[in-house]
Amino acid sequence: MAMYFQNEIVKEIIEKYRQIWSIGHALSLMGWDSETYMPKAGVEERAIARAELSLLAQQLILKPEFVQLVDKASGLEGLNDYEKGVVRVLQREIRIMKAIPPSLLAELEKTTQEAMHAWRMAKEANDYEKFKPYLDKIIKLTREKADYLGWKEHPYDALLDLYEEGLTTRDVDRILEPLAKELKALLSSVVYEGRFPQKHPLEDKQYERDWMERVNLEVLKIVGFPIGERSRLDVSAHPFTISIGLDDVRITTRYEGFDFKRSLLSTIHEFGHALYELQIDPGLKYTPLAEGASLGVHEGQSRFWENVIGRSREFIELIYPILRKNLPLVGRFTPEEVYLYFNTVRPSLIRTEADEVTYNLHIVLRARLEKLMIEGSVKAGDLPELWNSLMEELVGVKPKTYSEGVLQDIHWSMGSIGYFPTYTLGNIIAAQLRYHIERELKLSEKISRGEFEFIREWLKNKIHRYGKTYPPKELLRMVFGEEYSVELLVKYLKEKYVG
Amino acid sequence: MAMYFQNEIVKEIIEKYRQIWSIGHALSLMGWDSETYMPKAGVEERAIARAELSLLAQQLILKPEFVQLVDKASGLEGLNDYEKGVVRVLQREIRIMKAIPPSLLAELEKTTQEAMHAWRMAKEANDYEKFKPYLDKIIKLTREKADYLGWKEHPYDALLDLYEEGLTTRDVDRILEPLAKELKALLSSVVYEGRFPQKHPLEDKQYERDWMERVNLEVLKIVGFPIGERSRLDVSAHPFTISIGLDDVRITTRYEGFDFKRSLLSTIHEFGHALYELQIDPGLKYTPLAEGASLGVHEGQSRFWENVIGRSREFIELIYPILRKNLPLVGRFTPEEVYLYFNTVRPSLIRTEADEVTYNLHIVLRARLEKLMIEGSVKAGDLPELWNSLMEELVGVKPKTYSEGVLQDIHWSMGSIGYFPTYTLGNIIAAQLRYHIERELKLSEKISRGEFEFIREWLKNKIHRYGKTYPPKELLRMVFGEEYSVELLVKYLKEKYVG
Repeated sequence: MAMYFQNEIVKEIIEKYRQIWSIGHALSLMGWDSETYMPKAGVEERAIARAELSLLAQQLILKPEFVQLVDKASGLEGLNDYEKGVVRVLQREIRIMKAIPPSLLAELEKTTQEAMHAWRMAKEANDYEKFKPYLDKIIKLTREKADYLGWKEHPYDALLDLYEEGLTTRDVDRILEPLAKELKALLSSVVYEGRFPQKHPLEDKQYERDWMERVNLEVLKIVGFPIGERSRLDVSAHPFTISIGLDDVRITTRYEGFDFKRSLLSTIHEFGHALYELQIDPGLKYTPLAEGASLGVHEGQSRFWENVIGRSREFIELIYPILRKNLPLVGRFTPEEVYLYFNTVRPSLIRTEADEVTYNLHIVLRARLEKLMIEGSVKAGDLPELWNSLMEELVGVKPKTYSEGVLQDIHWSMGSIGYFPTYTLGNIIAAQLRYHIERELKLSEKISRGEFEFIREWLKNKIHRYGKTYPPKELLRMVFGEEYSVELLVKYLKEKYVG
Repeated sequence: MAMYFQNEIVKEIIEKYRQIWSIGHALSLMGWDSETYMPKAGVEERAIARAELSLLAQQLILKPEFVQLVDKASGLEGLNDYEKGVVRVLQREIRIMKAIPPSLLAELEKTTQEAMHAWRMAKEANDYEKFKPYLDKIIKLTREKADYLGWKEHPYDALLDLYEEGLTTRDVDRILEPLAKELKALLSSVVYEGRFPQKHPLEDKQYERDWMERVNLEVLKIVGFPIGERSRLDVSAHPFTISIGLDDVRITTRYEGFDFKRSLLSTIHEFGHALYELQIDPGLKYTPLAEGASLGVHEGQSRFWENVIGRSREFIELIYPILRKNLPLVGRFTPEEVYLYFNTVRPSLIRTEADEVTYNLHIVLRARLEKLMIEGSVKAGDLPELWNSLMEELVGVKPKTYSEGVLQDIHWSMGSIGYFPTYTLGNIIAAQLRYHIERELKLSEKISRGEFEFIREWLKNKIHRYGKTYPPKELLRMVFGEEYSVELLVKYLKEKYVG
């Protein structure tokens, strides 16, 4: 640590931060346990403990001595990048915590708890009316939240910045609108050309859970996931990655019993997230920098491994023997046919099942609607119709039910408005990674040879090791010489799908 | 909670205690995870987090506002038993925390960390000299600790009270010395009569791990362990029970691959601990009363299930079909032969492998030595010889190596001096439970019929539901009309082994 943090005030901040870090460590472990091994009835006590410890962490961050120390450090000259990073991250956290009044936070918490429940019921019953009043209340409270957080050009800015430091509505428009245009055209071409099938017989095929687990474990071994040493693979209803510590990063996957690429790609996706956390410089342990730079940069890592690597012809050829060994049904298909199975393209209704070509169109739709909600120009009651007409305009399909339309995502019921765009940022960053790693290292060759250590090293040295030291845009400029590049994403998709 | 806690000051205490409870919840989960699923390299960050959170909990308990509130409550008239319990438990915790200077605590922490390592090395190399200097230092520091804690008749009192509230050296002498005399005589008779074998062919037999796990799970189902609902069974190097919450109590077991009774009895033992926590009144959730009364009372529950029930003829007959179904080797033995396998009696060197007749003699030895250490009349250098001559006097066997003699237990290296007697208290309480439940419910009949719900109910109503509300001696007087009864333990063992 000595090398990274020399300033006495910053050192004192980091010293005090250990208690806050420890609460975070505990909360992460609790989160992991809740989704994996916790007995059912443990849920009530777990909820209380999580709420109390979150509050305690907040109390410790907002302690006057601590805030004063951070303020003092922010006025110092000559801090190094790590020291500046610590101050920036903590100032941001303090600013956000102080901005929102506890009464509003409590109301949001209560409302979203009820709304998540209502959303589940509504989705199951395909009855939008059940959810509508909750969504209206969430929109109202979130608009208040945006005002408390403060914004210059558009209230949506305040929310975007919560999920992606420095992201603005202007950025989102600049990125998503041209992308939408390009992708609509690309989708038409891909469908017209028909080289990539819309359906594949492997999609309906069932697999044996234990054998699929072996596939996941063997593939994780090839890409370099240190199971047992510094990580784990478990099972949960919704796959996730959690960093409990820099030497304890765990991922989960799920086994639906059919369409095996879902389990495998999801596992590789989470590996991408985990690798980021595992490659953060150990010198940043126990500090506020010991995590990824942002949601967007994180998603960039996971999508790079899932899509750019995991769905590439080279990778499918590399792992074909593993697939064939463990999944007898694969033997009836050539590597090329399996490659096409991993890359079907079709206009579809459900975001989480969308392919690389259509995925971002689903995000465009959500971002447009979120912007309107937060402006106040759209109410919950207007959403289903708007959703359906936008789906038709962007993707070319129209939902027949609410459940496969406006009710498909949990995010808004959780109050997560402004989160969706980070998924597209992730896809863009993944394409940027592809471009630069191909140029510097010959990515495709490395994949073909299974030489992932070079790819991991590149990611570590350029991005991972810094953790949260730099804000996302600054980090991107350092690595790529530019921020988010729509062009590189479009280039990647065109080369792959109509090239 | 309203029913149990009505006094406004006590309610305020409990309200504030939730944060402390939440840290305890997190620490318990971390403890469980460290022994079960944590990746190896996670150990460093976990150690930091545990130390920081323990310190944080202590800071919260010793906050002046909190201490004042507890003091204020302690002066109140007319509190009900639950309210008095809360005040008593917290006053005791505060007293103990305040008594020991942080510098001494830190030195003890550092010394025991080193000593545990040295003990492992010493035991492995059968080289007592490697451990001796650490033990001398631990004795010295522990004597200081006793003086800080305060004592009236004997410094050992202060340490005994740490592990068993209210236990004194006088109690220990009054209990252990007559017991030693009785057990020595009993052991001679059992060995002379030869009805219970010293060795049994099943001891050397290997088993299939997965099948043994099925045995454990089926037996746990019979006795009533709510796996998945409110509890779990996992695997760890050293079996333990941990209460993460009143609705989340987990046990572990181990599979050594031979001598299957070890895994099964250990599982039943931990079930006994877990049942205690699971049957605490839900009204005591989140309060300082939400745990067992003491180590001794806890051990009473586990030994009752392990020995009184688990090693009984009725129980072996009941589970014989489960054993035979899953462990083919059992088929070659009659239920009576299996009963004898569960009840071999032999003078032996290792406490943890001792039978019901000899076990407490191992405790007598340790308690005698601890008393001398803490008086200052014995140094680490004197222990090996004293140990060996006492083993010969009490059990009739003499260790040939340090590893199977004075170095066999980890306890002293951890600074746990005063802990061993709680094991014998457990055996006594188990015998008291047997006597009273037999009289009131016909215990043997209930076991034969597998009607464990009546036994669980009895334990819940008489003991479990109160949690820590009463100090152990008071609880025993309420339940049994007396405190620790050596007579009932001797009566139980005589009836079973020479009756």
